[in-house]
Amino acid sequence: MTNETSGEKFDLIAIGRACIDLNATEYNRPMEETMTFTKYVGGSPANIAIGSAKLGLKTGFIGKIADDQHGRFIRGYMEKAGIDVSGMVVDQEGHKTGLAFTEIKSPDECSILMYRDDVADLYLQPEEVDEEYIRRANKLVVSGTALAQSPSREAVLKAVHLAKKNGVEIVFELDYRPYTWKSAEETAVYYSLVAQQADIVIGTRDEYDIMENAVGGSNERTTEALFKHAPRIAVIKHGVEGSYAYTREGGTYRAQAYKTKVLKTFGAGDSYASAFLYALVQGKDLETALKYGSASASIVVSRHSSSDAMPAVDEIEALIADQPVLHS
Amino acid sequence: MTNETSGEKFDLIAIGRACIDLNATEYNRPMEETMTFTKYVGGSPANIAIGSAKLGLKTGFIGKIADDQHGRFIRGYMEKAGIDVSGMVVDQEGHKTGLAFTEIKSPDECSILMYRDDVADLYLQPEEVDEEYIRRANKLVVSGTALAQSPSREAVLKAVHLAKKNGVEIVFELDYRPYTWKSAEETAVYYSLVAQQADIVIGTRDEYDIMENAVGGSNERTTEALFKHAPRIAVIKHGVEGSYAYTREGGTYRAQAYKTKVLKTFGAGDSYASAFLYALVQGKDLETALKYGSASASIVVSRHSSSDAMPAVDEIEALIADQPVLHS
Amino acid sequence: MTNETSGEKFDLIAIGRACIDLNATEYNRPMEETMTFTKYVGGSPANIAIGSAKLGLKTGFIGKIADDQHGRFIRGYMEKAGIDVSGMVVDQEGHKTGLAFTEIKSPDECSILMYRDDVADLYLQPEEVDEEYIRRANKLVVSGTALAQSPSREAVLKAVHLAKKNGVEIVFELDYRPYTWKSAEETAVYYSLVAQQADIVIGTRDEYDIMENAVGGSNERTTEALFKHAPRIAVIKHGVEGSYAYTREGGTYRAQAYKTKVLKTFGAGDSYASAFLYALVQGKDLETALKYGSASASIVVSRHSSSDAMPAVDEIEALIADQPVLHS
Amino acid sequence: MTNETSGEKFDLIAIGRACIDLNATEYNRPMEETMTFTKYVGGSPANIAIGSAKLGLKTGFIGKIADDQHGRFIRGYMEKAGIDVSGMVVDQEGHKTGLAFTEIKSPDECSILMYRDDVADLYLQPEEVDEEYIRRANKLVVSGTALAQSPSREAVLKAVHLAKKNGVEIVFELDYRPYTWKSAEETAVYYSLVAQQADIVIGTRDEYDIMENAVGGSNERTTEALFKHAPRIAVIKHGVEGSYAYTREGGTYRAQAYKTKVLKTFGAGDSYASAFLYALVQGKDLETALKYGSASASIVVSRHSSSDAMPAVDEIEALIADQPVLHS
Repeated sequence: MTNETSGEKFDLIAIGRACIDLNATEYNRPMEETMTFTKYVGGSPANIAIGSAKLGLKTGFIGKIADDQHGRFIRGYMEKAGIDVSGMVVDQEGHKTGLAFTEIKSPDECSILMYRDDVADLYLQPEEVDEEYIRRANKLVVSGTALAQSPSREAVLKAVHLAKKNGVEIVFELDYRPYTWKSAEETAVYYSLVAQQADIVIGTRDEYDIMENAVGGSNERTTEALFKHAPRIAVIKHGVEGSYAYTREGGTYRAQAYKTKVLKTFGAGDSYASAFLYALVQGKDLETALKYGSASASIVVSRHSSSDAMPAVDEIEALIADQPVLHS
Repeated sequence: MTNETSGEKFDLIAIGRACIDLNATEYNRPMEETMTFTKYVGGSPANIAIGSAKLGLKTGFIGKIADDQHGRFIRGYMEKAGIDVSGMVVDQEGHKTGLAFTEIKSPDECSILMYRDDVADLYLQPEEVDEEYIRRANKLVVSGTALAQSPSREAVLKAVHLAKKNGVEIVFELDYRPYTWKSAEETAVYYSLVAQQADIVIGTRDEYDIMENAVGGSNERTTEALFKHAPRIAVIKHGVEGSYAYTREGGTYRAQAYKTKVLKTFGAGDSYASAFLYALVQGKDLETALKYGSASASIVVSRHSSSDAMPAVDEIEALIADQPVLHS
Repeated sequence: MTNETSGEKFDLIAIGRACIDLNATEYNRPMEETMTFTKYVGGSPANIAIGSAKLGLKTGFIGKIADDQHGRFIRGYMEKAGIDVSGMVVDQEGHKTGLAFTEIKSPDECSILMYRDDVADLYLQPEEVDEEYIRRANKLVVSGTALAQSPSREAVLKAVHLAKKNGVEIVFELDYRPYTWKSAEETAVYYSLVAQQADIVIGTRDEYDIMENAVGGSNERTTEALFKHAPRIAVIKHGVEGSYAYTREGGTYRAQAYKTKVLKTFGAGDSYASAFLYALVQGKDLETALKYGSASASIVVSRHSSSDAMPAVDEIEALIADQPVLHS
Repeated sequence: MTNETSGEKFDLIAIGRACIDLNATEYNRPMEETMTFTKYVGGSPANIAIGSAKLGLKTGFIGKIADDQHGRFIRGYMEKAGIDVSGMVVDQEGHKTGLAFTEIKSPDECSILMYRDDVADLYLQPEEVDEEYIRRANKLVVSGTALAQSPSREAVLKAVHLAKKNGVEIVFELDYRPYTWKSAEETAVYYSLVAQQADIVIGTRDEYDIMENAVGGSNERTTEALFKHAPRIAVIKHGVEGSYAYTREGGTYRAQAYKTKVLKTFGAGDSYASAFLYALVQGKDLETALKYGSASASIVVSRHSSSDAMPAVDEIEALIADQPVLHS
C-alpha cells in the first residue's frame, strides 16, 4: 500500500474473482460457428466493483490475478475504471486467469463455457488479506464463488472475520456457480456460515435454495432463519417477476423488472448489485434502491458485455423515470 | 439408527477421529530398537468418548472408520466400552485407519510417528452427519483435528451448525496436531470460527496461541476475545503448572497437577477432558471439575495406553482425596 | 468404427492433442492490447493431420476431445479437412479443450499463453486405443507432448507397442513443450523410450537435447545413439540454418530454409512434418522430402494460423521451384 | 558413495521398495483379535536383497526410505545383513514407510492390510538413480511394484535404460500388487515395456496374465511373445504344482514344490527369487536353480517372517537332499 492511499476510505471493497469473458463477436448462433471472440473483464465481484466505480463509489478490490497478459489486462482495466487495485495480488505459482466463453444462441438461450480449473483467483491466501485494508471499507462485498475452494475459501472467511471485528458491513452476494463446488452439502455449509455473519444478503431465489440445500424454499422461511443471525436486509430476486427486499424489522419491498430488448442474460446480477449498493450508499430508501438495481440490470442485459456495459447514474435514473415496469 | 436407540439421550456425543495407537511394548528406548507393538484404540475424541463412558456417561460417537480389520477392531472396542456406535460410518472408498506408533525413550522424551495421509476419519462427509442424532445429545464434543481437511471439516461445521440450531451445547477440544493442516493461517481461520460458536473451549496455552495465530498470547486477551462470542467457559491448560477455567461472568479457577510416576505424556489431554466433562454433567462446580480433569490426566500418564488406561470414578476420587498437589 | 471405414487404409494416423488456438486478431502489439481473438484448430498432431490431409494423404486421428462447443468445433473442422475422426473419443469427465492464446508482438517476438491444466487430450486412456484401427495405418505419428502426463502417456505407449507388433512405421515428432512435464529427467526417460522404438524421429536440435537431458548435444552423438536402436531416419532442425536428415546407413542430407515474410513463428514444425511425410509417402527421396518440409514451413509462418494456413501441394512445389534458398 | 565402496562389484543390485511388515504375534485368528505385532523389514526387492546377502551374494540396494524411525530401522537391518546401502536415499518430503499388517487366520487364509498411500519408496526419483552405481552390478533386480507410480516408475525405467546401456543383466520380478495401480491397461503397458527389455523374467502364472492383460494365458504364448524381445529366461510359477523355466533356445525345466508345514504364504516368492538367482550366480544349471528357489520358498512359508526367515545355503541344500518333492 502506498502512502497516498493509506488514509483513503472506501465505500466498498469487493473480494473474489476477476476473470476474462470471451464474448462471441458473432452471436445468435451456436458457439461452434462463432469464429471471433471479444475480450472483457468478468467475474461477479469484479463486475460489481466496476459497476460501483462507474456510478461514482470509492471502490477497492481484493483478489489474485495471473502473472500473465490476461492478469495484467484485468488490473489495467480495473485501475482505469477508478478502482483501487492495491489489494490485488499477483499469483507466483503459474495459475491461469479464469475464462468464460459466452455463447448467445438467442436472448433465451445463453450458455457459458467455463475454464475454472486451478485458476488464480481461487489461490488467494488468507495471509494475503490485510486487516488494515479491510478496515478502510464501509462495506465488504463477498462473492459466494470465492468460497468454493481452498485457499480462497479461507481468505474470504478471514476477510469476513476481520470485517466483523472492525465494524465493516458485510454484503454477501450469493453468486452461486456449480463448477468447483464438490457437493450440495459443502456449498450449504459455507453459504450458511457466511450468510449468518453478513449484514446484507443478495441472491436469486434459486441461490437461497442452494444455501439451504433445499428445493422450493420460501422467502418467509429463508428470512425467518436469516434474521435470527446477523443479517438486517435480505434481497431475493425472482427474475422477470421482480425482486424483494426484506428487513429484520419486518419490512417487505418489491421492485419490478424493467422492459428492455434482451441481448443476453449475463451480467444482470452484478449490475443489479452495484446499483442497489450505490443507492444505499447515497442514503436512498430500500424501495428506491431496488429500482436502481432493477433498472441497471435491464440496461446490461441489452448490451454485449457485463463489465464494459455497466451504466452511468443518469442512464439508470432516466430508465426509472421513463420506462414502464414490466409487470404491474 | 435402530428403534431401540431412537429415543435415547446422550450426555455427550464426540465427533472426529477414532484411530489405532501402536504403543512400543518394549519402551525406554528408541523405536528403532522396539520390535513389538501393542494395539489400542486412539485418537482424541475416541479417547474422550471411551473415558466418559468408563465414568458412566451416556456417550455416542460420530466418525468414519476403515472397512478393514482395524476399523472393525475400533468399533468393537468402543461398543464394548458402552459407547453408542450407530453414528459411526464405514468408509467405502478404501481409506485406511490412522495410526500412531508411540516411541517412549523416557518419560520426558516421547514422540509419535503418525500415519495420517488420506485416513478414513478425514473422509466423514456432511451428509453423514444426522440432525436427529445430534439433537439427542446434551453436549457435542468437537475435536480440532477433525477440521484439518475436507470433507471432515465440512462434516464438523455442519454438526456445529446443527448443534446450535437444536440447543445442544458445544465443547471444543482444540486438540491441535500440526500434520494435515496446510498453514497457520488456515488453522486459525477454522479454530476461530468454531471457538466463537462453542459454549466450552478446552486447550493448552499453546493451542490457544495456534487458534490466535499468535506467539506468547495471554489468558486475559484470549478470554476477552472469546467471551464476545458464544463461549461461557474457557479451560486453558499450562502443563505441570496446572490449569485454569475462566467464565463469561468473570470467574477464574485454578487446579494444580497431581504428583504421579510418569510413564509417557500421551493421553493426558483426553483423560482430562473426559473427567472434566463428567464432573460438569454430575453438576459439580468448576473448581471441582478441574480437579477431576487433573487427577484423571495424572493417572493416564502413568499407564501404557491412552484409551484402555482411562480411570474409573473411584480411582479419580481416591487420587483427589489422598494425593498432595504437585505445586502448592 | 463404421463398416464403410473398416477396410480403409491410412497413409498416416496421428495420435495426441487437438486443441484451440486463439490468435490475436489485432497483432504487432502486446496481448494486453489485443481485444479480439480468432479461433483455429491447433495442437501439433492435429496440425500435422490437417496439413497431411490437405496435401492429399489418407489420414486418421486418435485423441480425446472435450464434450463441449470447442470439442465439437475441432471434430467438425478436422472431418471437413478430410480426416477420419472415428478414432476421436469424447471425454465424459468434464475436461476442457486445451487453449493457446497467441501473442504476436513482432515477427521475432511471439509468445503463447497456454491453458493446459487437466485438458481433455491428456485424458486419452490406453483402453481407448484400438489395435484394429492402428493396424490400418502405414505410419503412426506420435507427438512427444502426449507423453507428458498419465493416462495419455500410457495410451501412447500402448499405441507404440501395437504399432511395433503390427509392423506400422512409427514417426516420433518430439514436439517438446515445457508445460505439464514435471522434470527434465522425466521427459528424457519417456522421450528416449519412444525414440528408441521409432522408425523416424523428427525434432529441433533443442528438442534432441531435451531427449538426451543434455546441453549442447551434437547431431553425431545423437544419431550414433539412436541408430543402435530401431530408428532408420533422424531429422534434426536447426531453424534458419536449415535442417538435416540422417540415415541408419550413414547418409546425411541438408535442406535450407526458404525466404519468406515472417508473420509469426508458430506452426512451422507441424507444416514441416506434414509436407516431409507427404513427400516420403509419395516415394520422393530424402533430400526432396526435406525441401518439401522447409517450403511448407516457410509458407505457414507467413500466415495467420497454423492449421487453416496449411499449404496445398502446388504452393509448396511452386515455392521450391521459384524461391531462392535463404542461406547458400 | 564412499571411496571404499567405489570399486566394489555387486552380484546383484535390487531396486524398489523396502518397507515394514507388522506380523501378528498371536496368529491363527482374525487380526481384530491380534493385540501385538512384531516388526520386520519387508517388501519384495528388500526381501530378495536380504535373502541373497544371507546366501553370500554381494548385494546392493536402490530405494527411498522415510526420514523416521521406521526408515532408520530398515537401513540398519539391511546394513547388518551385509547389503550395501549407499544407494538408499532418505526422503525429505515427509513420506512414510509402507506398512503391511499380516493376518494369519490359518495356513490357507492369510491376508495383508496394506498402507501404501504416498509411501516413501514410490518417491524415488530418476535423478537419484546413479549410472556409476548400476554399472557396478552384474544383475539389476527390478520389482514390478516400483513401476506402479511416478516418480518411482521413471526412476526404474531410467535404471533399466542404464543397465541396458552398460551391459548389466536385468532380472524382472513381476511382483504384482493390485494397490496403487490405476488400471489393468496401465499395468500391462509398463510390465510389457520392462519385460521386453529384461534378460530374466520371474513371476507366477497369474502375474504373467496381468502383464498380458489377459485371462487364462498359456506359458507357450507368453514365452513365444517374450523371446521375440530381450529375455533369455522366463520363470513361471504355478504354486504347489511347481515352477517352470523356459529358455530362448527352447529349453523347458520344471521344479516341484517341497513338502513343508506351512505357517503362512507370505514371502514365498522373494525367497524363491533370491535362492534361484544365487544358484545362477554360482553357475548352477537352470534345473538346479529352480530347486534352490523351490526349497528356499518352502522354508520361508514355514516361518513367521519373510525377511528374517531367509534360509542359509546349507538349509536349502539339506532340504533338496533330504525332502521328498510334494508332487511327483
